[in-house]
Amino acid sequence: MSWEDKVRKVVPYTPGEQPSDDHKVIKLNTNEMPYPPSPKVAEALAAFDVDSLRLYPAPDVGPLRDALAARYGVEADEMFVGVGSDDVLATAFLTFFNSDRPVIFPDITYSFYDVWCDVYRITYEIKKLDEEFHIVKSDYLTENGGIVIANPNAPTGVSEDKDVDFIEDIVKANPDSVVIVDEAYVDFGGVSALPLIDKYDNILIVRTFSKSRAFAGMRIGFAMGNSRLIKYMNDVKYSINSYTMNRPAIELGIAALSDEEYYADAVAKVVKTREWTARELRDRGFTVTDSRTNFVFAAPPADRISARELFSGLKKRNIYVRWWDKDRLRDRLRISIGTDEEMQALIKAVDEIMKG
Amino acid sequence: MSWEDKVRKVVPYTPGEQPSDDHKVIKLNTNEMPYPPSPKVAEALAAFDVDSLRLYPAPDVGPLRDALAARYGVEADEMFVGVGSDDVLATAFLTFFNSDRPVIFPDITYSFYDVWCDVYRITYEIKKLDEEFHIVKSDYLTENGGIVIANPNAPTGVSEDKDVDFIEDIVKANPDSVVIVDEAYVDFGGVSALPLIDKYDNILIVRTFSKSRAFAGMRIGFAMGNSRLIKYMNDVKYSINSYTMNRPAIELGIAALSDEEYYADAVAKVVKTREWTARELRDRGFTVTDSRTNFVFAAPPADRISARELFSGLKKRNIYVRWWDKDRLRDRLRISIGTDEEMQALIKAVDEIMKG
Repeated sequence: MSWEDKVRKVVPYTPGEQPSDDHKVIKLNTNEMPYPPSPKVAEALAAFDVDSLRLYPAPDVGPLRDALAARYGVEADEMFVGVGSDDVLATAFLTFFNSDRPVIFPDITYSFYDVWCDVYRITYEIKKLDEEFHIVKSDYLTENGGIVIANPNAPTGVSEDKDVDFIEDIVKANPDSVVIVDEAYVDFGGVSALPLIDKYDNILIVRTFSKSRAFAGMRIGFAMGNSRLIKYMNDVKYSINSYTMNRPAIELGIAALSDEEYYADAVAKVVKTREWTARELRDRGFTVTDSRTNFVFAAPPADRISARELFSGLKKRNIYVRWWDKDRLRDRLRISIGTDEEMQALIKAVDEIMKG
Repeated sequence: MSWEDKVRKVVPYTPGEQPSDDHKVIKLNTNEMPYPPSPKVAEALAAFDVDSLRLYPAPDVGPLRDALAARYGVEADEMFVGVGSDDVLATAFLTFFNSDRPVIFPDITYSFYDVWCDVYRITYEIKKLDEEFHIVKSDYLTENGGIVIANPNAPTGVSEDKDVDFIEDIVKANPDSVVIVDEAYVDFGGVSALPLIDKYDNILIVRTFSKSRAFAGMRIGFAMGNSRLIKYMNDVKYSINSYTMNRPAIELGIAALSDEEYYADAVAKVVKTREWTARELRDRGFTVTDSRTNFVFAAPPADRISARELFSGLKKRNIYVRWWDKDRLRDRLRISIGTDEEMQALIKAVDEIMKG
């Protein structure tokens, strides 16, 4: 017997590499925005009252929560704010997934879902995406302890349908489970299920500032759902950490919401660069999914080079992308969309590597 | 059957009130520092690179972790950093307290301990402090699933012993349990058990920037212990949220560590004001513990006024202190130490209220 017998042992999630010198590499491995936050954020930083840091922040994240609620047309008690969407999702898993029935999600999706299940001892069952990486709807109409769907999905980039019916059918068929829809990438071309929160009390929409708002370093995520769902999440949050969002996150987060035009332009640029990148890769024999995100998911032509070789070749040239040594994933790379210059450098490197 | 049957239902912790207009009230209810952070923090803020916010922060909090390790003379792998000591403590509870045996802590202590046990379904048993609010050491020498001791304790302000023997005896007697020592207030006159981490592998020391470093609004806490303890905590942390500390917290946290003289002066001022406040209250018939923290724990003379009445009278005069309607607590107030002017205003208000 030792204290180690009482330890919760887990296999943690592995985030994409963060090289300590961010300037020397072309970093296309963690789906960050290639453009900086709005100038309004710099203004808010310059106006920030350092002396206020001696005081605790608002435990209910009031000012930022209210600004978000106004922006998305929901009530303040339908909005939950956390330390990135990882914190929001982890809190939702802990809050809503407490039964003997398995929580279900796809085999290929955000690889944190099974990690949260493991750390919180939640039973889960994975359902295979079809050959085109689409969800098989009937898989989600069986008895379950909860459902998690990333839409658009990662690392595939694939979006389910052009309207919300696909999600609605699943939500409607599962009144006894909470359905979490992880919309981290929705701003890059997905269709949000947000309208469903007025019609169903069992759907939670999760979003992040890390991607489309160029705020990965600030750690802001949020969730929207009916007020009872949000109340239960807040009860759990207040049972773990009263004050999760620091004062700079609250104030600069509000500033980031005050310049929608800037972010719409930045997102449009990323989408344009994404389409260019996908075309260039397809021209070279790659299979590329129809991405609605800020990355492409691409399989190099297998007769010419493996994804693993390409991954290593790019890394040698200081271009970081993401590759997983897992079934159904190992023949592909996930490549975040950078600036036009960065993607031109990527394509040039691909050509060099494939030339051998 | 409904989704609500699968919800983790909890009774959350209630933090002290945070009035939205911080300037109109004298806020002595959440043990914040009355003095601002060091000028070095303002310099770091002015130098902060807003564009870097588009990138994720270091998942291992590397630069801040290393600065903290250097400051406290431990190795980097003996240091864990989190979003305030609440995040650090919650992570430690989830990591180390997984057995059928009860975790033990005092009846009067930080009221978050039982909340964490509830949310994570950890069995616990409370042990009564003696009449002077001291720990009865023999209570902690029985079989248990873990031990938590706040030293100095809150809301009593009482410190256990002048040396580390008291804690050492408990740590030594419990090699099969992790002993968490919550030293949130140690800088105001306690004795740290930090030297014990080189001798025992089952002690974790938890600290915060919220009190002595005037950084409650920044959310930085940390823990020190042997590298295996820290590794297990990091595994759990990486299983919940890869990036908990945002870039401003990391950079401004480092700045706050670069000006020890400033904080030593600020702490000395608080200690001086605390002693003055305690004397003034004793002169008026209050019973006041020997506080080693940045608050006093004081019982008004029962024949003249109840703690509850005094609490209400102070609140009417816009002076916020803390009162709990709980056994052994309801005859006392916890009063955070503000500036000299604020404490003079408090004493004046006490005189007015007691005059009736």
